[in-house]
Amino acid sequence: MSKFLNNKYLTLDTYTPGEQPQDMQYIKLNTNESPFPPAPNVLKAINSREIENLRLYSDPECQNLREKLAGLYGVSSDQVYLSNGSDDILNFAFMAFSGNGTQAAFPDISYGFYKVFANLQGTQYTEIPLKEDFSIDYQEYCNLDKFIVIANPNAPTGLTLSISEIERILKSNPNHVVVIDEAYVDFGAESCYPLINRYENLLVVQTFSKSRSMAGARLGFALGPKELIADLNKIKYSTNPYNVNRMTLLAGEATIDANDYYLEKCKVIAQNRDYTTKELEKQGFKVLPSKANFILVKYEGIEGKFIYEQLKKSGILIRHFSTFRIKDYNRITIGTKEQMNVFLREVNKIVSEG
Amino acid sequence: MSKFLNNKYLTLDTYTPGEQPQDMQYIKLNTNESPFPPAPNVLKAINSREIENLRLYSDPECQNLREKLAGLYGVSSDQVYLSNGSDDILNFAFMAFSGNGTQAAFPDISYGFYKVFANLQGTQYTEIPLKEDFSIDYQEYCNLDKFIVIANPNAPTGLTLSISEIERILKSNPNHVVVIDEAYVDFGAESCYPLINRYENLLVVQTFSKSRSMAGARLGFALGPKELIADLNKIKYSTNPYNVNRMTLLAGEATIDANDYYLEKCKVIAQNRDYTTKELEKQGFKVLPSKANFILVKYEGIEGKFIYEQLKKSGILIRHFSTFRIKDYNRITIGTKEQMNVFLREVNKIVSEG
Repeated sequence: MSKFLNNKYLTLDTYTPGEQPQDMQYIKLNTNESPFPPAPNVLKAINSREIENLRLYSDPECQNLREKLAGLYGVSSDQVYLSNGSDDILNFAFMAFSGNGTQAAFPDISYGFYKVFANLQGTQYTEIPLKEDFSIDYQEYCNLDKFIVIANPNAPTGLTLSISEIERILKSNPNHVVVIDEAYVDFGAESCYPLINRYENLLVVQTFSKSRSMAGARLGFALGPKELIADLNKIKYSTNPYNVNRMTLLAGEATIDANDYYLEKCKVIAQNRDYTTKELEKQGFKVLPSKANFILVKYEGIEGKFIYEQLKKSGILIRHFSTFRIKDYNRITIGTKEQMNVFLREVNKIVSEG
Repeated sequence: MSKFLNNKYLTLDTYTPGEQPQDMQYIKLNTNESPFPPAPNVLKAINSREIENLRLYSDPECQNLREKLAGLYGVSSDQVYLSNGSDDILNFAFMAFSGNGTQAAFPDISYGFYKVFANLQGTQYTEIPLKEDFSIDYQEYCNLDKFIVIANPNAPTGLTLSISEIERILKSNPNHVVVIDEAYVDFGAESCYPLINRYENLLVVQTFSKSRSMAGARLGFALGPKELIADLNKIKYSTNPYNVNRMTLLAGEATIDANDYYLEKCKVIAQNRDYTTKELEKQGFKVLPSKANFILVKYEGIEGKFIYEQLKKSGILIRHFSTFRIKDYNRITIGTKEQMNVFLREVNKIVSEG
């Protein structure tokens, strides 16, 4: 840190991403990536003509991709916002819709970045505890009079709220924006985006990183009433107008064209999740009932961190959080059936010997 | 705009990028892109294996590319910061090093985004007028006791400060960061990056957009003392840790490997600039002596806007700014010799008939 840094950032706790070993020798079940490559037409989209065009700026309006997404979801293109990964959108939402007297609220166990964004923007916030079973009590978010952010499915639990519960939250907080972070919605949960035409305070955030096999291309999007999308654009045009590069725009368009490929892969991942859950339960694990591409699991009597460390020695990366309420747990990303079988075999050795 | 937008952004004036027509039918001399495609090895770098790897997050540390840049410039890799275009770095610099009592200063005629960043961050700022000949009087920046941002070469004038003048500014403002924005430095000006080992307050910002033919890939970088780089990383890990995507990282690495290709192209662009300058002067234009890949020109007695509009009708896009002091001027990006000859022919028609 330099002596020049603005005082307000001195105590900032930054976000710690999961391990990203660059040598690729692990079975990587730690950062919720898809085990499947992008659809074949994505490769075709990044062709030599398009690489030559890299000399030209990308379209700051991201018009083509916004229209494709609007078509897929049956909304209008001014209800779609695109970004360099969805973290950028979440950050912009905290900037635009919290602070200046508006406090934020989100679950105590959720995506760890919400707290970081709140701190960065100087927004006061409340972390609302999950219930004993790790589910969200939607009633605790009703009539809050705060900017609310909820991941649905929640991470790292995988548990969901129903659309009618989300609707109750939206209705009872008419003066503040409610962000529903649907990063993991495509693996079996229900998206609330159809509500954007009925609630002026709903912003839905999704990403191409998980269900669309593009974590490395950085592409997130938001669906919302056009006034909220205009607010996000105001921040974008005050920070980084050309926020999505040409190659990612092309890859995104090809991805929407290949929607059936991704639906099929999501189905396989959901099957592998349910299979892994059953097998782990047979081994004696407690597994939260997840609708995401990961599961949160614990084994009574063996520390989560120990299991994480032993698996790493066997060449399998999973994610362990030191947060108090879930420190006994580990989060396992769902990979291919083959990967899950290797994982199940290795974790069985650990708990049998444990 | 929604009723939910934080009041502090209500009056924000966003940045207006140059026109980016998506149909590509113009000779595009309006946003300072390179007329040359990326080097052939950039295409090879984005191969099918790498597209398959898009399912995995990019390296948040950008380690390989940082090391390549460090090697090229003879600095250490912790003196290099990489970003999704250099606008992001400039915005982070305003966040990190201004505000909270620290005012900003920059020239009245310069990159229009500086004012936007200052307003976004709520930083009070002074615009220091260029001299009558549009040059920067470095003495006006000495002992300012402010956060200073200077584009060198300046945009849209193309005029430069010398390294010794920059050094005087650095020395006389020891308590604040001085950002030297070198977006256009590779076309004939001298970079001040060697000073980063001697001045703890120097941050040098560069980009792959112009001299490295990658505007559409979004890649900017900063060179600075490692403490300033750590400050930028603190903001990055509080907003968007995976800020550069896999394809852009690979393209960037290939670009550094092909450095000679780009040096040669920069030389050609500088020759075309000098040629265009001479030809325009023959036609009666006043042309500022530029070291960048653009020239700022005016024709006494004919409005800048008129020339811009007439050229657009002929299929040539240039950039006109409505800012009072330069409203008689136009900024012409330097393209290939063939493009400049078409431009010279068409502009000659306009001023002959004018």
